[in-house]
Amino acid sequence: MSASDHRAARDGFRWDEVDLLAYKETGAAPFRAVTRQILFADPVLSCELRYFEVAPGGHTTLERHAHAHGVTILTGRGRCLVGETIHEIGPHDLVTVPPWTWHQFRAAAAEKLGFLCMVNVERDRPALPTDQELADLRRDPAIAAFLDGRAA
Amino acid sequence: MSASDHRAARDGFRWDEVDLLAYKETGAAPFRAVTRQILFADPVLSCELRYFEVAPGGHTTLERHAHAHGVTILTGRGRCLVGETIHEIGPHDLVTVPPWTWHQFRAAAAEKLGFLCMVNVERDRPALPTDQELADLRRDPAIAAFLDGRAA
Repeated sequence: MSASDHRAARDGFRWDEVDLLAYKETGAAPFRAVTRQILFADPVLSCELRYFEVAPGGHTTLERHAHAHGVTILTGRGRCLVGETIHEIGPHDLVTVPPWTWHQFRAAAAEKLGFLCMVNVERDRPALPTDQELADLRRDPAIAAFLDGRAA
Repeated sequence: MSASDHRAARDGFRWDEVDLLAYKETGAAPFRAVTRQILFADPVLSCELRYFEVAPGGHTTLERHAHAHGVTILTGRGRCLVGETIHEIGPHDLVTVPPWTWHQFRAAAAEKLGFLCMVNVERDRPALPTDQELADLRRDPAIAAFLDGRAA
């Protein structure tokens, strides 16, 4: 069954006819306090639009892949790592994650972070950092602090 | 030159490095008081994400095409016609425009309407209604009132 042409927003960033999903199916990838909702997954659209919400203090998986992301912050505040750069992010900011670029989104300690993520329907599986890749990233003290959830 | 990985939102639904564009290039299609900003148009993403803003009392072109739209209302209120159904729309509502479906977005008389629109990069040109198609649509008094910008 296809979705209705109009699906109303409810309070708290929920939508009619949109299920609240676990962020990841498996427990293999480290993350904390993230939910996922698929807003558009129409076969005639070549991208999907998903809404991710990270609870205060939570974070998405540190990963990279061949596909790209186009992210629009919808609510809340936090920081994200894209490649080797940490960005402060807030409502309606735009974040581009290029192919094969390490990325992680972290909500502020006292504020959730909700964002839309546009992604190709046809896409590869994310790769996690090897121990060596993680050690290389952590060589930058600011990135190490980010990954540990500490202030820079 | 590619866009920066982080483009901050400014006040008033503008963004760093994002140009404010005319809604349509040509004057052939009827519309009123609409601007367009292209938020994501990365060659590795198979969709674009655009932000359209319709000033109070304004409206997009009544049109249809083979491609589809995935629309997320970002700010303001108004109504939209999708096929033969008129929907009241407000912040974060989701609107799907299926292929070959007449559609038009109208801002409320006293409130602007701003929305994100996801669309395939590869897409056909919109078609405008013929006089006969317009007459057929207007046979429904509610649709005629909508198209004239009158309350239902």
